[in-house]
Amino acid sequence: MNLARAQQTLLRSLYTRHGRKKSGLCVAEGIRSVGELCAAIPDAVEFFVCLPGVRPPVDCAPVYEVSESVFSSLSATVNGQGLLAVARIPAPADNSIVPMDPYLLALDRVGDPGNFGTICRTAKASGLQELWLTTGSVDPYGDKALRAGLGSQFSMRIRFFADLQSLAEAANAFGYGPVWLTDPHQGENLYHVEDLYRKSVLVIGSEGAGVGELAGASRVTIPMPGNFESLNAAQAATIFLFEAVRRQFS
Amino acid sequence: MNLARAQQTLLRSLYTRHGRKKSGLCVAEGIRSVGELCAAIPDAVEFFVCLPGVRPPVDCAPVYEVSESVFSSLSATVNGQGLLAVARIPAPADNSIVPMDPYLLALDRVGDPGNFGTICRTAKASGLQELWLTTGSVDPYGDKALRAGLGSQFSMRIRFFADLQSLAEAANAFGYGPVWLTDPHQGENLYHVEDLYRKSVLVIGSEGAGVGELAGASRVTIPMPGNFESLNAAQAATIFLFEAVRRQFS
Repeated sequence: MNLARAQQTLLRSLYTRHGRKKSGLCVAEGIRSVGELCAAIPDAVEFFVCLPGVRPPVDCAPVYEVSESVFSSLSATVNGQGLLAVARIPAPADNSIVPMDPYLLALDRVGDPGNFGTICRTAKASGLQELWLTTGSVDPYGDKALRAGLGSQFSMRIRFFADLQSLAEAANAFGYGPVWLTDPHQGENLYHVEDLYRKSVLVIGSEGAGVGELAGASRVTIPMPGNFESLNAAQAATIFLFEAVRRQFS
Repeated sequence: MNLARAQQTLLRSLYTRHGRKKSGLCVAEGIRSVGELCAAIPDAVEFFVCLPGVRPPVDCAPVYEVSESVFSSLSATVNGQGLLAVARIPAPADNSIVPMDPYLLALDRVGDPGNFGTICRTAKASGLQELWLTTGSVDPYGDKALRAGLGSQFSMRIRFFADLQSLAEAANAFGYGPVWLTDPHQGENLYHVEDLYRKSVLVIGSEGAGVGELAGASRVTIPMPGNFESLNAAQAATIFLFEAVRRQFS
């Protein structure tokens, strides 16, 4: 089948937040991300675009084979794997569903798509099923966030809240608390807080401004023996997420 | 002072491995990286380039103030901080110096500059002072590696070895061993190996090929409850490095 010009224009528009908002669609790129998409929500796929010799993992939507020059005009990566999928953006999670995770990971205005994607896939790898976000966080379904997240977004339950206050209230209503704000400079030593992951809310802050203020919340920090403050949001989140794994499995 | 055309051409050449090799120089960009450079090896700085209003942190070399258009023609980043430094590349570490680290972190052909830089600064943050590399690893002083590493390279002792075998032999000669190969798929559970950091050698493998084979070495892995294999070399290294911090401080 031929990929119509209108579809090509549509696809290119999905690399902007405006284009995604207007159409309600997003674009997943690469074998891993498209694979996650097809495994998690195959019905959401509208169509695939691929190079000759490349096939989508599931036959759940029309497949358009295009030439290298057309493909590279549609792709955001330089050395892509020759596979793209256009899919409907998942509706925001129903905030009345009872969360099942042992603790909640919240991102407060994490704006870098690479950090967001890395945190999302690391959270999934660690066994979490949800991610709670405040307004001002990056679009989880932007192309960069999906690439960095390897499409893990499609199988995580992502909830949205106006701010940290309303996020904490919603968590409390489900019996989650206290709220721990992760802080690069001050707070209790992560390794000394015994109940850090016991039905708590762990908040990772934005790269620039750090985590916001929240009355009644405590701060927790990663000890840094080398005296070189250098962990970005994704590195810090990885340490917090796998300390939870350690406590669970050792 | 005016930045001569020859110096501009030289500076631009430093964004290629060939240019760095030919001149023995490298370029550090941004306030943090340049700050680390000036703190660690001020004598290595040849000159600074900055936008009006920006100053280097130390007066250790000539400063050239240039216009925005000249600066952006010399910079590899789009929204830079208006500060560059050209410096002599540190000579390879003297491999006869006795290492002082409690365990050794080795990178086996880690080729991605972003991963390398992140691992370098996280290693420094965790308190290590050395990084051991095999041939095939990325140039530690390339501009991308320096940006990702925030210039931590300038204060770490970086040793080079032809391959994993000769690296292990050198480590053994200093009394370090056994060698643990970190593996995404198999091996002992990181959280169950009691003497993982006791005068051992911990090897992080390349992104594509993984860690090489080495007779007599054991494998260690990160448990992944979410069944989503998604940790890149930098995330995995972060988990290993901060598990060492945890054992030291709790």
